[in-house]
Amino acid sequence: MTNTLYVLNGPNLNLLGLREPGIYGATTLKDIEEMCKEKAAAMGWSIVFRQSNHEGELIDWIQEAREYARGIIFNPAAYTHTSVAFQDAIRAVSLPVIEVHLSNIHARESFRHHSYVSPAALGVICGLNAKGYVLAIEALVDHLESA
Amino acid sequence: MTNTLYVLNGPNLNLLGLREPGIYGATTLKDIEEMCKEKAAAMGWSIVFRQSNHEGELIDWIQEAREYARGIIFNPAAYTHTSVAFQDAIRAVSLPVIEVHLSNIHARESFRHHSYVSPAALGVICGLNAKGYVLAIEALVDHLESA
Amino acid sequence: MTNTLYVLNGPNLNLLGLREPGIYGATTLKDIEEMCKEKAAAMGWSIVFRQSNHEGELIDWIQEAREYARGIIFNPAAYTHTSVAFQDAIRAVSLPVIEVHLSNIHARESFRHHSYVSPAALGVICGLNAKGYVLAIEALVDHLESA
Amino acid sequence: MTNTLYVLNGPNLNLLGLREPGIYGATTLKDIEEMCKEKAAAMGWSIVFRQSNHEGELIDWIQEAREYARGIIFNPAAYTHTSVAFQDAIRAVSLPVIEVHLSNIHARESFRHHSYVSPAALGVICGLNAKGYVLAIEALVDHLESA
Amino acid sequence: MTNTLYVLNGPNLNLLGLREPGIYGATTLKDIEEMCKEKAAAMGWSIVFRQSNHEGELIDWIQEAREYARGIIFNPAAYTHTSVAFQDAIRAVSLPVIEVHLSNIHARESFRHHSYVSPAALGVICGLNAKGYVLAIEALVDHLESA
Amino acid sequence: MTNTLYVLNGPNLNLLGLREPGIYGATTLKDIEEMCKEKAAAMGWSIVFRQSNHEGELIDWIQEAREYARGIIFNPAAYTHTSVAFQDAIRAVSLPVIEVHLSNIHARESFRHHSYVSPAALGVICGLNAKGYVLAIEALVDHLESA
Amino acid sequence: MTNTLYVLNGPNLNLLGLREPGIYGATTLKDIEEMCKEKAAAMGWSIVFRQSNHEGELIDWIQEAREYARGIIFNPAAYTHTSVAFQDAIRAVSLPVIEVHLSNIHARESFRHHSYVSPAALGVICGLNAKGYVLAIEALVDHLESA
Amino acid sequence: MTNTLYVLNGPNLNLLGLREPGIYGATTLKDIEEMCKEKAAAMGWSIVFRQSNHEGELIDWIQEAREYARGIIFNPAAYTHTSVAFQDAIRAVSLPVIEVHLSNIHARESFRHHSYVSPAALGVICGLNAKGYVLAIEALVDHLESA
Amino acid sequence: MTNTLYVLNGPNLNLLGLREPGIYGATTLKDIEEMCKEKAAAMGWSIVFRQSNHEGELIDWIQEAREYARGIIFNPAAYTHTSVAFQDAIRAVSLPVIEVHLSNIHARESFRHHSYVSPAALGVICGLNAKGYVLAIEALVDHLESA
Amino acid sequence: MTNTLYVLNGPNLNLLGLREPGIYGATTLKDIEEMCKEKAAAMGWSIVFRQSNHEGELIDWIQEAREYARGIIFNPAAYTHTSVAFQDAIRAVSLPVIEVHLSNIHARESFRHHSYVSPAALGVICGLNAKGYVLAIEALVDHLESA
Amino acid sequence: MTNTLYVLNGPNLNLLGLREPGIYGATTLKDIEEMCKEKAAAMGWSIVFRQSNHEGELIDWIQEAREYARGIIFNPAAYTHTSVAFQDAIRAVSLPVIEVHLSNIHARESFRHHSYVSPAALGVICGLNAKGYVLAIEALVDHLESA
Amino acid sequence: MTNTLYVLNGPNLNLLGLREPGIYGATTLKDIEEMCKEKAAAMGWSIVFRQSNHEGELIDWIQEAREYARGIIFNPAAYTHTSVAFQDAIRAVSLPVIEVHLSNIHARESFRHHSYVSPAALGVICGLNAKGYVLAIEALVDHLESA
Repeated sequence: MTNTLYVLNGPNLNLLGLREPGIYGATTLKDIEEMCKEKAAAMGWSIVFRQSNHEGELIDWIQEAREYARGIIFNPAAYTHTSVAFQDAIRAVSLPVIEVHLSNIHARESFRHHSYVSPAALGVICGLNAKGYVLAIEALVDHLESA
Repeated sequence: MTNTLYVLNGPNLNLLGLREPGIYGATTLKDIEEMCKEKAAAMGWSIVFRQSNHEGELIDWIQEAREYARGIIFNPAAYTHTSVAFQDAIRAVSLPVIEVHLSNIHARESFRHHSYVSPAALGVICGLNAKGYVLAIEALVDHLESA
Repeated sequence: MTNTLYVLNGPNLNLLGLREPGIYGATTLKDIEEMCKEKAAAMGWSIVFRQSNHEGELIDWIQEAREYARGIIFNPAAYTHTSVAFQDAIRAVSLPVIEVHLSNIHARESFRHHSYVSPAALGVICGLNAKGYVLAIEALVDHLESA
Repeated sequence: MTNTLYVLNGPNLNLLGLREPGIYGATTLKDIEEMCKEKAAAMGWSIVFRQSNHEGELIDWIQEAREYARGIIFNPAAYTHTSVAFQDAIRAVSLPVIEVHLSNIHARESFRHHSYVSPAALGVICGLNAKGYVLAIEALVDHLESA
Repeated sequence: MTNTLYVLNGPNLNLLGLREPGIYGATTLKDIEEMCKEKAAAMGWSIVFRQSNHEGELIDWIQEAREYARGIIFNPAAYTHTSVAFQDAIRAVSLPVIEVHLSNIHARESFRHHSYVSPAALGVICGLNAKGYVLAIEALVDHLESA
Repeated sequence: MTNTLYVLNGPNLNLLGLREPGIYGATTLKDIEEMCKEKAAAMGWSIVFRQSNHEGELIDWIQEAREYARGIIFNPAAYTHTSVAFQDAIRAVSLPVIEVHLSNIHARESFRHHSYVSPAALGVICGLNAKGYVLAIEALVDHLESA
Repeated sequence: MTNTLYVLNGPNLNLLGLREPGIYGATTLKDIEEMCKEKAAAMGWSIVFRQSNHEGELIDWIQEAREYARGIIFNPAAYTHTSVAFQDAIRAVSLPVIEVHLSNIHARESFRHHSYVSPAALGVICGLNAKGYVLAIEALVDHLESA
Repeated sequence: MTNTLYVLNGPNLNLLGLREPGIYGATTLKDIEEMCKEKAAAMGWSIVFRQSNHEGELIDWIQEAREYARGIIFNPAAYTHTSVAFQDAIRAVSLPVIEVHLSNIHARESFRHHSYVSPAALGVICGLNAKGYVLAIEALVDHLESA
Repeated sequence: MTNTLYVLNGPNLNLLGLREPGIYGATTLKDIEEMCKEKAAAMGWSIVFRQSNHEGELIDWIQEAREYARGIIFNPAAYTHTSVAFQDAIRAVSLPVIEVHLSNIHARESFRHHSYVSPAALGVICGLNAKGYVLAIEALVDHLESA
Repeated sequence: MTNTLYVLNGPNLNLLGLREPGIYGATTLKDIEEMCKEKAAAMGWSIVFRQSNHEGELIDWIQEAREYARGIIFNPAAYTHTSVAFQDAIRAVSLPVIEVHLSNIHARESFRHHSYVSPAALGVICGLNAKGYVLAIEALVDHLESA
Repeated sequence: MTNTLYVLNGPNLNLLGLREPGIYGATTLKDIEEMCKEKAAAMGWSIVFRQSNHEGELIDWIQEAREYARGIIFNPAAYTHTSVAFQDAIRAVSLPVIEVHLSNIHARESFRHHSYVSPAALGVICGLNAKGYVLAIEALVDHLESA
Repeated sequence: MTNTLYVLNGPNLNLLGLREPGIYGATTLKDIEEMCKEKAAAMGWSIVFRQSNHEGELIDWIQEAREYARGIIFNPAAYTHTSVAFQDAIRAVSLPVIEVHLSNIHARESFRHHSYVSPAALGVICGLNAKGYVLAIEALVDHLESA
């Protein structure tokens, strides 16, 4: 069985480091990708790391993960709050998903407090910046290996 | 005038038969396509049958139907509850649309009870599984031929 | 085992054909009764067709159906939106019920969008006029014969 | 054409004079019937005056009024706030209806502030006790004779 | 003791007859004033009839009525839905008030269904056009003479 | 003065024992009637025990109780949540009422958490199955005898 | 196995008899304790009866009951409406709990209509004053002995 | 520095002139493009004018504008009311955006009154048809040149 | 026919330039008046420019505009969110109105997001400061001359 | 710099002493004016004391206070709950304002619990009758002299 | 009769001076205690001044005050918004309570705008910092001595 | 500077392993304490690990942490959803806090979706069981050492 995780990133995360640094800091998505790969490698796993601004493309990838991965780290960004389709996709593929947000969404506008992804996720990590991805990988591998 | 109907399917329906069988059963989307084509053929009509995870692509197809079809059977799946754009597209193309859902959406989570598509649809059929598509074709052809 | 279905109609449907023809058309309830009987007969089933303005009488009939029928086509009309008692009755008799509405209730006033009957129904058909009853019979017989 | 009005009274109004006199006063429903008949007679009209605790029976009478009356004075009492079926019945019979309440429902509990009957009524009179019925007869006759 | 009633009219009612005739008809406020005076005269009462677009001026007049009148017929028009100050003024002057609306406010936009005046009023008449004023005078005189 | 209590039961309770046993258990309404009569007899009281699916008939019985009983045990079943008319009837007859529910309505769907009957009742017992009726008789007799 | 029940009382109940007698009557908590003990003794059970103004202390006692009792009578008083922690505690200890309120909380301010305790309770008794405790003991013993 | 503005158009706007002319008129999107280019040219600026039915593609273009333009005129059409991702994209690119709607969205269905784009926009123009685009260009150029 | 527009300004706008410059800038209302007059003159129109803190006076002016103007530019300021009377006045005078706000009200407190004026306006411009008035004049003249 | 405070009073406060004495007591506004002047004089300050039923006039006075006073004691009465314009006026004039209410508005109807004035005020005193004005003067002078 | 007041302080107020000085300033709770005692002494009264982070302990003290004090100054801090038990305690002890908040809670997050304490309090003072306590003492002594 | 973290646990967590194992698993709080200490030790830090059912005691400990620790891992359990006081305590002590929940609170009842603690926390981890504590320690130490 494959030792691969998908790390999927939603809209505007490609601008990370450029975008509202007061909220998100100077780390770029490339930096996060490297941190993820390094962490996974250390645990004997590999990472497929992608970003898209298209809700449909993200759904395609969640579905694709059924064949190529054993779990997903998912930062749905702005689609978190509006995408019922992500919830359905996650339920359909039956893979464990850890939802990650760089910022603490509960300390921002109230429409960011609700996530359609969370009810279908294994767990959620928010507010811990890029470190949140690394912890999610650790938790997900731990979950998969102890299952 | 063409005797064609579009049958459009929203996100995650491509996984039908794999996905949450407790809710959706073992029928695949391919099975439904065949049932639809058989039913339409028996009534002297043809079917264009498609699925997409992309809201934009589904809108493109609704618009395309203006030229190639006389009506649409539409299962918007998870986009049912969030897509104002589908409502606008249906109003813009002025084709009769029957909205179909495999499961009884009113017996599920409350956020699935509201549809942005319904107010622009001719009618709605839900909870009757694949049979719902077949009945929708019958109703839509009946509507078009009696108009 | 009996091959009978109950077709029950709620308040004001006796005025059909007279009442707000812009919304409901000129078909009378008598016409619908005949369409239903014809359809059922063609499938080898019989129909008991009734209408009442009394919520209590409709409940009595749902309960009565336990003994004389294998399923119910139910147009609860205005009681759709207020009758918790219908939901309980349907759950109590354990018969499959298909809810039918002549008009598309989701395209009307918002208080008509919610149904207390739907969560206990097998499925719902709305907006397809009298044809909706015929399709419901087809679906319900199909459901009962394939079960 | 008949010069008859129906005056229909909803649940518990038969107890008037006995019931919560602090809110409704000591006048009985019989007293109101006589005031109505006297007023109507003075204008050359006759009155059919009825009371029921059954929502269905009240709907039957609204429907019956189509054949025997030119308008309805309607005190729906507690069903005011819950009966969508009354709204449909009034729309179906296409008779002018004046809704009357003995007490000022807007000065009572908030669930009494909304009426499903009002949107289908010609007008509403509340808080003027038995006098409200008499004024309603005057207004309805005036409306019918000037139409 | 004076036999005078104040009839106070809120914003935009001076345009009556010009304004949205589909909703309000062709009767002018001058016509209503004459109907009111005629009715009152026939019952041995006199009328002070005024209109203002200023909430404050209407409050001044309600207060003034304490000295010069025994009751108020009040059509608060658009201020109905927003003026807590009218409610306080009516409670402060301890005069009986009948609230009148030309149109049936419960059949219009939902923000017109709530009145801050009603809880402090004796009763409410709406939807009966100019006739509503005449009935209100009859009811108020009746109330005052029988008290 | 009579030593009689009315025990009134709302819609679908006649199916008890048949209906959703997971929620309501196997006791029938007949069983409950006997438990009630036995308990009452032991305290020197008699019971009139009835069930109806008709809201109007239940109101008729509440009104009838004014003449024949000193209190009411009332299980309004599904009408609990929608019947303003029950509240008015109870207030009108001025008899003490104890509301009983077999199941714990607060542990079920949220629309079952609100009761229009409770504000007019002396007290409420729910979730204690048939035993709840027996306790209600004890409490009501106790209340009546100590008053 | 022990034949003990805990009877736990929430904030301000120590002032009973002193506190708002119009709502709660003159019975003191000491009186209730005696009624409870007498009732339990008559059924062969014993009672641990306590009161605290501290939410945490009440949780400690619920937990303690796991070892020393077979069920709990619980009047959570003002914490009823705000304590999610009570719900968790009851679920954690897996003891049957009957919730008791002296007054009819559904006839008071709307914020008192909701209970966080009820969904985890076996049943609820309210509005029957001190008698409610006695009935709860009877019901709980009955439940435990018949289980 | 470039003197270019992006004019981005959301779903279904490609059907303009065909679509619900009662609301949107007969002007086509091509006509609007020409009006925009003419206006911009007169002020010494150029326009990149695009339309897409895909939310993701519109986000891609907003991001692309960072490099090729100094501001954006944005008609998000149906995505106005649901796209948190547009709000994030606009904040991320730090370009001034004027939101334009052809129709007066505040005079339509209530779900069209709220915009996720507005809080991140410089300003909003609605209800002025194609002219709204021209005014937006004038305002945006004015804003950029005076900054 | 007159070539005059009314430009009406609501409460506190007389303090412009002094008031919360972080939100509104340093431009005074006098400056805006001059910009408006200059723009109008260039198009061959004249302007009547007024400000009031009194809702009633603003209604008087809207009514007055019926005789002296062909359209209104209206900045209702704080009354935007509470004045049903403005909506009625605009509907009554049947003149085209463009609503203008200096700041982007959708980026401020949520109670400022709703306008009672907008549903009766031709269009709305907000967030473009004094320039918004000038654009509104251009749009309104354009609208009037092309009608 | 002037040592003057404005004390402004909203609608119906001129009737104080006459109006609902159960809530407001027998003190007149004249009495309060004297208490205020006495208190201010004792601290070396003077008072301008006014009352109006007109929202616009109160705004005029708040604006006027910019030139003649260093702070405002403001009892907005019924306009408290509806006047966004007061909030804007207070923010615009940049004077410290203490909001005073004679009665405890939080113990009255729920629509009186919200104040549009409070968010712009320095502080709020309610429920302390006329004494509240005196304390407000003490606090405001204290605030101004210690600033 | 004792001349003592209790001054009770809720959670986190012990950190005053350290805690969010931007909101609460540098005054410590010890400073406030001294100001209170000085003020009380000047009026011939004494003060019991306490702080607790425990809701239950604060309830204990409110109850204790029945015996040792004639009134309470109460700053419930964060428990203001959640403690129904404080409301009950205050009602139970029948002592006059003045609620004090250092900051203007109506200018902070919306969940801080509602107080469960206010409906049971004599009056409320907020936003006047430590001075608010002193004014509360003056008002409470004044109230008690004039009663 | 100390290298200590506080790990604080809210109500009912002492029952972990016993309590609803379907949701929380068989791990005890003692197990979690050991995992935390081991992890901290490996990073050169020490842990103070505590549990309480008392909201006030938890606040005391948060305050105490100001002196003895550099950060807090906080599982507020049921108090998460109701404790404004925790939010204030965290803000007051100015220590970084990571909120941890064993279960995925967003997949449970809706009243568990909102946290008063989150807006004041650095970040949140939920649904990852005991592993969540260990990750929180890693993240918090990482945060503190990189700051």
